Amino acid sequence: MNDFFGAVKERQERIKSLLCVGLDPDLDKIPRAYQKKDRPILQFCLDVIDATKDFASCFKPQFAHFAAASATDDLQQVVSILRSEGLPVILDAKRGDVGSTSEFYAHEAFDIYDAGAVTVNPYMGGDSLVPFLEYKDRGVILLCRTSNPGGTDIQNLELSSGGQVFERVAVLARDEWNTNKNVGLVVGATRPEELRRVREIVGDMYLLLPGVGAQGADVREVMRAGSG
Amino acid sequence: MNDFFGAVKERQERIKSLLCVGLDPDLDKIPRAYQKKDRPILQFCLDVIDATKDFASCFKPQFAHFAAASATDDLQQVVSILRSEGLPVILDAKRGDVGSTSEFYAHEAFDIYDAGAVTVNPYMGGDSLVPFLEYKDRGVILLCRTSNPGGTDIQNLELSSGGQVFERVAVLARDEWNTNKNVGLVVGATRPEELRRVREIVGDMYLLLPGVGAQGADVREVMRAGSG
Repeated sequence: MNDFFGAVKERQERIKSLLCVGLDPDLDKIPRAYQKKDRPILQFCLDVIDATKDFASCFKPQFAHFAAASATDDLQQVVSILRSEGLPVILDAKRGDVGSTSEFYAHEAFDIYDAGAVTVNPYMGGDSLVPFLEYKDRGVILLCRTSNPGGTDIQNLELSSGGQVFERVAVLARDEWNTNKNVGLVVGATRPEELRRVREIVGDMYLLLPGVGAQGADVREVMRAGSG
Repeated sequence: MNDFFGAVKERQERIKSLLCVGLDPDLDKIPRAYQKKDRPILQFCLDVIDATKDFASCFKPQFAHFAAASATDDLQQVVSILRSEGLPVILDAKRGDVGSTSEFYAHEAFDIYDAGAVTVNPYMGGDSLVPFLEYKDRGVILLCRTSNPGGTDIQNLELSSGGQVFERVAVLARDEWNTNKNVGLVVGATRPEELRRVREIVGDMYLLLPGVGAQGADVREVMRAGSG
Protein backbone atom coordinates (compact mmCIF):
# COMPACT_ATOMS: atom_id res chain seq x y z
CA MET A 1 0.00 0.00 0.00
CA ASN A 2 1.48 3.34 -1.02
CA ASP A 3 1.76 6.58 0.93
CA PHE A 4 -1.68 7.92 0.04
CA PHE A 5 -3.76 4.81 0.60
CA GLY A 6 -1.62 3.98 3.63
CA ALA A 7 -2.42 7.36 5.17
CA VAL A 8 -6.13 6.92 4.50
CA LYS A 9 -6.12 3.44 6.03
CA GLU A 10 -4.19 4.61 9.09
CA ARG A 11 -6.69 7.42 9.58
CA GLN A 12 -9.69 5.11 9.00
CA GLU A 13 -8.43 2.86 11.79
CA ARG A 14 -7.50 5.67 14.14
CA ILE A 15 -10.81 7.58 13.93
CA LYS A 16 -12.85 4.43 13.27
CA SER A 17 -14.54 5.86 10.19
CA LEU A 18 -14.59 4.99 6.50
CA LEU A 19 -16.41 8.20 5.60
CA CYS A 20 -15.21 10.28 2.66
CA VAL A 21 -16.68 13.80 2.74
CA GLY A 22 -17.45 15.26 -0.68
CA LEU A 23 -17.01 18.98 -1.27
CA ASP A 24 -19.32 19.89 -4.15
CA PRO A 25 -20.11 23.53 -3.44
CA ASP A 26 -23.02 24.96 -5.42
CA LEU A 27 -23.52 28.71 -5.03
CA ASP A 28 -27.25 28.29 -5.67
CA LYS A 29 -27.62 25.86 -2.80
CA ILE A 30 -25.31 26.97 -0.03
CA PRO A 31 -26.89 28.99 2.82
CA ARG A 32 -27.61 32.58 1.89
CA ALA A 33 -25.43 33.93 4.69
CA TYR A 34 -22.36 32.83 2.72
CA GLN A 35 -23.37 34.85 -0.33
CA LYS A 36 -22.54 38.06 1.50
CA LYS A 37 -19.03 36.91 2.33
CA ASP A 38 -15.88 37.39 0.35
CA ARG A 39 -15.13 34.04 -1.39
CA PRO A 40 -18.36 32.31 -0.35
CA ILE A 41 -17.34 28.93 -1.77
CA LEU A 42 -14.11 28.88 0.19
CA GLN A 43 -15.83 29.93 3.41
CA PHE A 44 -18.54 27.30 2.98
CA CYS A 45 -16.00 24.54 2.35
CA LEU A 46 -13.91 25.54 5.36
CA ASP A 47 -16.99 25.37 7.59
CA VAL A 48 -17.93 21.93 6.20
CA ILE A 49 -14.38 20.75 6.82
CA ASP A 50 -14.42 22.05 10.39
CA ALA A 51 -17.75 20.40 11.09
CA THR A 52 -16.83 17.00 9.65
CA LYS A 53 -13.11 16.47 9.96
CA ASP A 54 -13.29 14.41 13.14
CA PHE A 55 -15.38 11.84 11.29
CA ALA A 56 -13.81 12.01 7.83
CA SER A 57 -11.16 9.54 6.72
CA CYS A 58 -10.66 11.73 3.66
CA PHE A 59 -12.14 14.64 1.69
CA LYS A 60 -13.13 14.70 -1.95
CA PRO A 61 -13.42 18.16 -3.52
CA GLN A 62 -15.12 17.97 -6.94
CA PHE A 63 -13.31 19.98 -9.61
CA ALA A 64 -16.25 21.10 -11.79
CA HIS A 65 -18.09 22.76 -8.92
CA PHE A 66 -15.16 25.09 -8.41
CA ALA A 67 -14.35 25.55 -12.12
CA ALA A 68 -17.93 26.45 -13.05
CA ALA A 69 -17.88 29.20 -10.41
CA SER A 70 -14.47 30.47 -11.63
CA ALA A 71 -13.24 29.48 -8.18
CA THR A 72 -10.29 27.20 -8.86
CA ASP A 73 -8.24 29.44 -6.55
CA ASP A 74 -10.63 28.39 -3.79
CA LEU A 75 -10.09 24.74 -4.75
CA GLN A 76 -6.35 25.20 -4.51
CA GLN A 77 -6.70 26.76 -1.08
CA VAL A 78 -9.13 24.08 0.14
CA VAL A 79 -6.67 21.33 -0.81
CA SER A 80 -3.81 23.23 0.78
CA ILE A 81 -5.68 23.67 4.07
CA LEU A 82 -6.78 20.02 4.14
CA ARG A 83 -3.22 18.86 3.57
CA SER A 84 -1.81 21.20 6.19
CA GLU A 85 -4.13 19.52 8.69
CA GLY A 86 -2.99 16.07 7.60
CA LEU A 87 -6.34 15.25 5.99
CA PRO A 88 -6.13 13.07 2.84
CA VAL A 89 -7.54 14.70 -0.32
CA ILE A 90 -9.01 13.00 -3.39
CA LEU A 91 -9.45 15.48 -6.24
CA ASP A 92 -12.58 14.29 -8.02
CA ALA A 93 -11.81 15.36 -11.57
CA LYS A 94 -12.42 12.28 -13.78
CA ARG A 95 -9.37 13.06 -15.90
CA GLY A 96 -7.74 10.99 -18.66
CA ASP A 97 -6.31 11.53 -22.14
CA VAL A 98 -3.59 10.17 -24.44
CA GLY A 99 -0.38 9.59 -22.53
CA SER A 100 1.42 12.81 -23.48
CA THR A 101 -1.61 14.87 -22.46
CA SER A 102 -2.26 12.85 -19.31
CA GLU A 103 1.17 14.02 -18.15
CA PHE A 104 -0.27 17.53 -18.05
CA TYR A 105 -3.42 16.35 -16.26
CA ALA A 106 -1.32 14.47 -13.70
CA HIS A 107 0.76 17.60 -13.20
CA GLU A 108 -2.45 19.63 -12.77
CA ALA A 109 -3.85 17.26 -10.13
CA PHE A 110 -0.71 16.35 -8.21
CA ASP A 111 1.46 19.46 -8.53
CA ILE A 112 -0.80 22.44 -9.24
CA TYR A 113 -3.56 21.28 -6.86
CA ASP A 114 -1.27 19.02 -4.81
CA ALA A 115 -4.03 16.43 -4.35
CA GLY A 116 -3.15 13.15 -2.67
CA ALA A 117 -5.27 11.22 -5.18
CA VAL A 118 -7.31 11.91 -8.30
CA THR A 119 -10.21 10.15 -10.01
CA VAL A 120 -9.42 9.04 -13.57
CA ASN A 121 -11.56 7.65 -16.39
CA PRO A 122 -10.11 4.37 -17.77
CA TYR A 123 -11.86 4.41 -21.19
CA MET A 124 -8.65 5.39 -23.02
CA GLY A 125 -6.71 2.49 -21.50
CA GLY A 126 -3.26 1.80 -20.10
CA ASP A 127 -1.03 4.47 -21.62
CA SER A 128 -3.56 7.16 -20.66
CA LEU A 129 -3.13 6.12 -17.01
CA VAL A 130 0.65 5.74 -16.84
CA PRO A 131 1.49 9.42 -16.21
CA PHE A 132 -0.81 9.35 -13.17
CA LEU A 133 0.46 5.96 -11.97
CA GLU A 134 4.04 7.21 -12.08
CA TYR A 135 3.33 9.43 -9.09
CA LYS A 136 4.06 6.53 -6.75
CA ASP A 137 3.13 8.30 -3.54
CA ARG A 138 -0.28 9.42 -4.83
CA GLY A 139 -3.53 7.56 -5.44
CA VAL A 140 -5.15 6.98 -8.84
CA ILE A 141 -8.81 6.08 -8.42
CA LEU A 142 -10.28 4.68 -11.62
CA LEU A 143 -13.94 4.69 -12.58
CA CYS A 144 -15.08 1.06 -12.61
CA ARG A 145 -18.83 0.83 -11.99
CA THR A 146 -20.31 4.25 -11.38
CA SER A 147 -23.44 4.87 -9.32
CA ASN A 148 -25.39 6.88 -11.91
CA PRO A 149 -28.23 5.36 -14.01
CA GLY A 150 -26.25 5.66 -17.28
CA GLY A 151 -23.46 3.62 -15.73
CA THR A 152 -25.13 0.60 -17.32
CA ASP A 153 -24.71 1.88 -20.90
CA ILE A 154 -21.03 0.95 -21.30
CA GLN A 155 -19.95 -0.53 -17.97
CA ASN A 156 -22.51 -3.36 -17.98
CA LEU A 157 -21.99 -4.51 -21.55
CA GLU A 158 -21.49 -8.30 -21.59
CA LEU A 159 -18.18 -9.43 -23.04
CA SER A 160 -17.84 -12.45 -25.31
CA SER A 161 -14.96 -13.59 -23.09
CA GLY A 162 -17.31 -13.56 -20.09
CA GLY A 163 -18.12 -10.90 -17.51
CA GLN A 164 -18.93 -7.27 -18.12
CA VAL A 165 -16.85 -4.22 -19.00
CA PHE A 166 -16.57 -3.01 -15.38
CA GLU A 167 -15.22 -6.43 -14.34
CA ARG A 168 -12.59 -6.19 -17.07
CA VAL A 169 -11.59 -2.76 -15.72
CA ALA A 170 -11.22 -4.32 -12.27
CA VAL A 171 -9.07 -7.15 -13.67
CA LEU A 172 -6.85 -4.71 -15.60
CA ALA A 173 -6.54 -2.54 -12.49
CA ARG A 174 -5.40 -5.57 -10.50
CA ASP A 175 -3.16 -7.26 -13.09
CA GLU A 176 -1.76 -4.47 -15.26
CA TRP A 177 -2.09 -1.03 -13.74
CA ASN A 178 -1.31 -1.50 -10.04
CA THR A 179 2.45 -2.04 -10.23
CA ASN A 180 3.04 0.87 -7.86
CA LYS A 181 0.25 -0.20 -5.49
CA ASN A 182 -1.42 3.15 -6.01
CA VAL A 183 -4.65 2.20 -7.78
CA GLY A 184 -8.14 2.41 -6.32
CA LEU A 185 -11.55 2.00 -7.94
CA VAL A 186 -14.85 3.89 -7.94
CA VAL A 187 -17.73 1.45 -7.47
CA GLY A 188 -21.25 2.76 -6.92
CA ALA A 189 -22.67 1.80 -3.54
CA THR A 190 -26.06 1.61 -5.22
CA ARG A 191 -25.23 -1.82 -6.71
CA PRO A 192 -24.15 -4.12 -3.86
CA GLU A 193 -23.97 -7.24 -6.07
CA GLU A 194 -21.54 -5.56 -8.43
CA LEU A 195 -19.60 -4.12 -5.51
CA ARG A 196 -19.24 -7.67 -4.12
CA ARG A 197 -18.00 -8.86 -7.52
CA VAL A 198 -15.39 -6.09 -7.74
CA ARG A 199 -14.22 -6.81 -4.19
CA GLU A 200 -13.75 -10.48 -5.15
CA ILE A 201 -11.61 -9.47 -8.11
CA VAL A 202 -9.39 -6.83 -6.51
CA GLY A 203 -8.90 -8.13 -2.96
CA ASP A 204 -7.99 -5.34 -0.56
CA MET A 205 -7.67 -2.55 -3.13
CA TYR A 206 -9.09 0.83 -2.01
CA LEU A 207 -12.68 1.28 -3.21
CA LEU A 208 -14.43 4.64 -3.28
CA LEU A 209 -18.17 4.03 -2.99
CA PRO A 210 -20.40 6.96 -3.91
CA GLY A 211 -24.14 6.56 -3.64
CA VAL A 212 -24.88 6.40 0.08
CA GLY A 213 -27.32 9.17 1.01
CA ALA A 214 -29.16 11.03 -1.76
CA GLN A 215 -28.73 8.16 -4.23
CA GLY A 216 -30.26 5.71 -1.75
CA ALA A 217 -27.61 3.08 -1.06
CA ASP A 218 -27.96 1.31 2.29
CA VAL A 219 -24.88 1.55 4.53
CA ARG A 220 -25.33 -1.86 6.16
CA GLU A 221 -25.71 -3.62 2.81
CA VAL A 222 -22.73 -1.73 1.37
CA MET A 223 -20.56 -2.72 4.32
CA ARG A 224 -21.48 -6.38 3.85
CA ALA A 225 -20.81 -6.31 0.10
CA GLY A 226 -17.71 -4.13 0.12
CA SER A 227 -15.62 -5.27 3.07
CA GLY A 228 -12.22 -6.53 1.93
CA MET B 1 -27.00 19.71 -38.25
CA ASN B 2 -26.82 22.17 -35.39
CA ASP B 3 -25.21 25.61 -35.21
CA PHE B 4 -21.74 24.42 -34.27
CA PHE B 5 -21.34 21.55 -36.72
CA GLY B 6 -23.14 23.61 -39.36
CA ALA B 7 -20.60 26.41 -38.95
CA VAL B 8 -17.70 23.98 -39.19
CA LYS B 9 -19.15 22.37 -42.31
CA GLU B 10 -19.78 25.74 -43.94
CA ARG B 11 -16.20 26.76 -43.21
CA GLN B 12 -14.80 23.41 -44.43
CA GLU B 13 -16.54 23.94 -47.75
CA ARG B 14 -15.63 27.60 -48.06
CA ILE B 15 -11.90 27.24 -47.37
CA LYS B 16 -11.74 23.70 -48.82
CA SER B 17 -10.06 22.25 -45.75
CA LEU B 18 -11.00 19.63 -43.15
CA LEU B 19 -8.02 20.51 -40.96
CA CYS B 20 -8.51 20.97 -37.23
CA VAL B 21 -5.55 22.76 -35.64
CA GLY B 22 -4.71 21.58 -32.14
CA LEU B 23 -3.39 24.07 -29.59
CA ASP B 24 -1.39 22.04 -27.05
CA PRO B 25 1.15 24.58 -25.81
CA ASP B 26 4.04 23.11 -23.85
CA LEU B 27 6.33 25.70 -22.24
CA ASP B 28 9.26 23.29 -22.50
CA LYS B 29 8.84 22.94 -26.24
CA ILE B 30 7.80 26.32 -27.61
CA PRO B 31 10.56 28.48 -29.11
CA ARG B 32 12.75 30.14 -26.51
CA ALA B 33 11.94 33.61 -27.79
CA TYR B 34 8.45 33.27 -26.28
CA GLN B 35 9.84 32.57 -22.83
CA LYS B 36 10.94 36.18 -22.49
CA LYS B 37 7.49 37.51 -23.27
CA ASP B 38 4.70 38.28 -20.90
CA ARG B 39 2.18 35.38 -21.13
CA PRO B 40 4.30 33.19 -23.43
CA ILE B 41 1.58 30.56 -23.89
CA LEU B 42 -0.94 33.12 -25.06
CA GLN B 43 1.54 34.76 -27.43
CA PHE B 44 2.56 31.40 -28.89
CA CYS B 45 -1.05 30.35 -29.46
CA LEU B 46 -1.92 33.66 -31.10
CA ASP B 47 0.98 33.25 -33.52
CA VAL B 48 -0.06 29.67 -34.35
CA ILE B 49 -3.60 30.88 -34.95
CA ASP B 50 -2.41 33.68 -37.24
CA ALA B 51 -0.20 31.31 -39.21
CA THR B 52 -2.84 28.60 -39.69
CA LYS B 53 -6.27 30.19 -39.68
CA ASP B 54 -6.61 30.36 -43.45
CA PHE B 55 -6.31 26.58 -43.58
CA ALA B 56 -8.11 25.61 -40.39
CA SER B 57 -11.75 24.56 -40.40
CA CYS B 58 -11.61 24.70 -36.59
CA PHE B 59 -9.23 24.96 -33.64
CA LYS B 60 -8.89 22.58 -30.72
CA PRO B 61 -7.22 24.00 -27.60
CA GLN B 62 -6.35 21.23 -25.14
CA PHE B 63 -7.36 22.06 -21.57
CA ALA B 64 -4.61 20.27 -19.59
CA HIS B 65 -1.79 22.08 -21.37
CA PHE B 66 -3.13 25.38 -20.10
CA ALA B 67 -4.17 24.10 -16.64
CA ALA B 68 -0.78 22.51 -15.94
CA ALA B 69 0.89 25.87 -16.65
CA SER B 70 -1.64 27.73 -14.45
CA ALA B 71 -2.67 29.47 -17.65
CA THR B 72 -6.41 28.94 -17.86
CA ASP B 73 -6.75 32.72 -18.26
CA ASP B 74 -4.79 32.32 -21.48
CA LEU B 75 -7.13 29.53 -22.56
CA GLN B 76 -10.11 31.78 -21.94
CA GLN B 77 -8.55 34.52 -24.02
CA VAL B 78 -7.55 32.15 -26.83
CA VAL B 79 -11.14 30.90 -27.13
CA SER B 80 -12.47 34.44 -27.01
CA ILE B 81 -10.13 35.61 -29.79
CA LEU B 82 -10.92 32.59 -31.97
CA ARG B 83 -14.64 33.18 -31.59
CA SER B 84 -14.34 36.89 -32.29
CA GLU B 85 -12.76 35.94 -35.63
CA GLY B 86 -15.56 33.50 -36.39
CA LEU B 87 -13.29 30.46 -36.00
CA PRO B 88 -15.00 27.36 -34.52
CA VAL B 89 -13.49 26.13 -31.24
CA ILE B 90 -13.48 22.61 -29.81
CA LEU B 91 -12.35 22.59 -26.19
CA ASP B 92 -10.48 19.31 -25.82
CA ALA B 93 -11.17 18.53 -22.17
CA LYS B 94 -12.44 14.91 -22.09
CA ARG B 95 -15.03 15.78 -19.45
CA GLY B 96 -17.83 13.63 -18.02
CA ASP B 97 -19.34 12.83 -14.62
CA VAL B 98 -22.68 11.96 -13.02
CA GLY B 99 -25.47 14.11 -14.42
CA SER B 100 -25.61 16.72 -11.65
CA THR B 101 -21.85 17.26 -11.85
CA SER B 102 -21.77 17.22 -15.65
CA GLU B 103 -24.01 20.30 -15.45
CA PHE B 104 -21.08 22.09 -13.88
CA TYR B 105 -18.65 20.73 -16.48
CA ALA B 106 -20.98 21.79 -19.29
CA HIS B 107 -21.19 25.25 -17.72
CA GLU B 108 -17.39 25.35 -17.47
CA ALA B 109 -16.92 24.42 -21.15
CA PHE B 110 -19.77 26.33 -22.76
CA ASP B 111 -20.20 29.37 -20.51
CA ILE B 112 -16.94 29.96 -18.65
CA TYR B 113 -14.75 29.12 -21.67
CA ASP B 114 -17.50 29.73 -24.24
CA ALA B 115 -16.29 26.86 -26.43
CA GLY B 116 -18.37 25.90 -29.45
CA ALA B 117 -17.84 22.20 -28.70
CA VAL B 118 -16.22 20.03 -26.06
CA THR B 119 -14.82 16.51 -26.02
CA VAL B 120 -16.58 14.20 -23.53
CA ASN B 121 -15.81 10.70 -22.28
CA PRO B 122 -18.84 8.37 -22.65
CA TYR B 123 -17.81 5.73 -20.06
CA MET B 124 -20.39 6.98 -17.53
CA GLY B 125 -23.23 6.70 -20.05
CA GLY B 126 -26.32 8.62 -21.07
CA ASP B 127 -27.21 10.73 -18.03
CA SER B 128 -23.60 11.91 -17.77
CA LEU B 129 -23.92 13.35 -21.29
CA VAL B 130 -27.34 14.98 -21.06
CA PRO B 131 -26.20 18.29 -19.50
CA PHE B 132 -23.79 18.77 -22.40
CA LEU B 133 -26.33 17.66 -25.01
CA GLU B 134 -28.85 20.17 -23.72
CA TYR B 135 -26.73 22.99 -25.12
CA LYS B 136 -28.38 22.57 -28.49
CA ASP B 137 -26.25 25.07 -30.38
CA ARG B 138 -22.97 23.53 -29.20
CA GLY B 139 -21.14 20.35 -30.20
CA VAL B 140 -20.53 17.35 -27.93
CA ILE B 141 -17.73 15.20 -29.30
CA LEU B 142 -17.61 11.80 -27.61
CA LEU B 143 -14.59 9.54 -27.37
CA CYS B 144 -15.36 6.47 -29.47
CA ARG B 145 -12.11 4.82 -30.67
CA THR B 146 -9.11 6.83 -29.57
CA SER B 147 -5.79 6.86 -31.42
CA ASN B 148 -3.52 5.93 -28.49
CA PRO B 149 -2.13 2.38 -28.00
CA GLY B 150 -4.18 1.80 -24.81
CA GLY B 151 -7.34 2.54 -26.77
CA THR B 152 -7.59 -1.21 -27.31
CA ASP B 153 -7.89 -2.03 -23.58
CA ILE B 154 -11.56 -1.13 -23.21
CA GLN B 155 -12.71 0.14 -26.60
CA ASN B 156 -11.85 -3.06 -28.49
CA LEU B 157 -13.39 -5.52 -26.06
CA GLU B 158 -15.63 -7.94 -27.96
CA LEU B 159 -19.27 -7.91 -26.88
CA SER B 160 -21.34 -11.05 -26.56
CA SER B 161 -24.06 -9.30 -28.58
CA GLY B 162 -21.57 -8.79 -31.43
CA GLY B 163 -19.18 -5.95 -32.24
CA GLN B 164 -16.84 -4.14 -29.92
CA VAL B 165 -17.30 -1.49 -27.24
CA PHE B 166 -16.42 1.41 -29.56
CA GLU B 167 -19.07 0.26 -32.05
CA ARG B 168 -21.63 0.21 -29.26
CA VAL B 169 -20.66 3.80 -28.39
CA ALA B 170 -21.21 4.74 -32.05
CA VAL B 171 -24.63 3.06 -32.06
CA LEU B 172 -25.66 4.78 -28.81
CA ALA B 173 -24.43 8.11 -30.20
CA ARG B 174 -26.56 7.61 -33.30
CA ASP B 175 -29.70 6.14 -31.70
CA GLU B 176 -29.90 7.58 -28.21
CA TRP B 177 -27.75 10.62 -27.68
CA ASN B 178 -28.09 12.64 -30.89
CA THR B 179 -31.62 13.97 -30.45
CA ASN B 180 -30.38 17.55 -30.78
CA LYS B 181 -28.12 16.72 -33.73
CA ASN B 182 -25.16 18.00 -31.75
CA VAL B 183 -23.08 14.84 -31.29
CA GLY B 184 -19.75 14.09 -32.92
CA LEU B 185 -17.24 11.31 -32.29
CA VAL B 186 -13.49 11.03 -31.79
CA VAL B 187 -12.07 8.21 -33.90
CA GLY B 188 -8.33 7.73 -34.20
CA ALA B 189 -7.04 8.17 -37.74
CA THR B 190 -4.46 5.52 -36.93
CA ARG B 191 -7.03 2.75 -37.42
CA PRO B 192 -8.66 3.18 -40.84
CA GLU B 193 -10.63 -0.08 -40.65
CA GLU B 194 -12.29 0.99 -37.43
CA LEU B 195 -12.84 4.48 -38.80
CA ARG B 196 -14.62 2.93 -41.78
CA ARG B 197 -16.79 0.88 -39.42
CA VAL B 198 -17.75 3.95 -37.37
CA ARG B 199 -18.57 5.89 -40.53
CA GLU B 200 -20.87 3.05 -41.63
CA ILE B 201 -22.70 3.20 -38.30
CA VAL B 202 -23.12 6.94 -37.91
CA GLY B 203 -23.60 8.17 -41.48
CA ASP B 204 -22.70 11.84 -41.84
CA MET B 205 -22.04 12.57 -38.15
CA TYR B 206 -19.04 14.84 -37.49
CA LEU B 207 -15.89 12.79 -36.79
CA LEU B 208 -12.78 14.26 -35.19
CA LEU B 209 -9.79 12.19 -36.33
CA PRO B 210 -6.61 12.68 -34.34
CA GLY B 211 -3.51 10.74 -35.33
CA VAL B 212 -2.38 12.26 -38.62
CA GLY B 213 1.20 13.50 -38.25
CA ALA B 214 3.27 12.44 -35.25
CA GLN B 215 1.14 9.35 -34.67
CA GLY B 216 1.67 8.23 -38.24
CA ALA B 217 -1.77 8.03 -39.84
CA ASP B 218 -1.83 8.43 -43.62
CA VAL B 219 -4.03 11.28 -44.91
CA ARG B 220 -5.05 9.55 -48.13
CA GLU B 221 -6.05 6.35 -46.35
CA VAL B 222 -7.94 8.34 -43.71
CA MET B 223 -9.84 10.24 -46.36
CA ARG B 224 -10.88 7.01 -48.06
CA ALA B 225 -11.99 5.40 -44.80
CA GLY B 226 -13.60 8.40 -43.19
CA SER B 227 -15.51 10.19 -45.92
CA GLY B 228 -19.22 10.33 -45.14
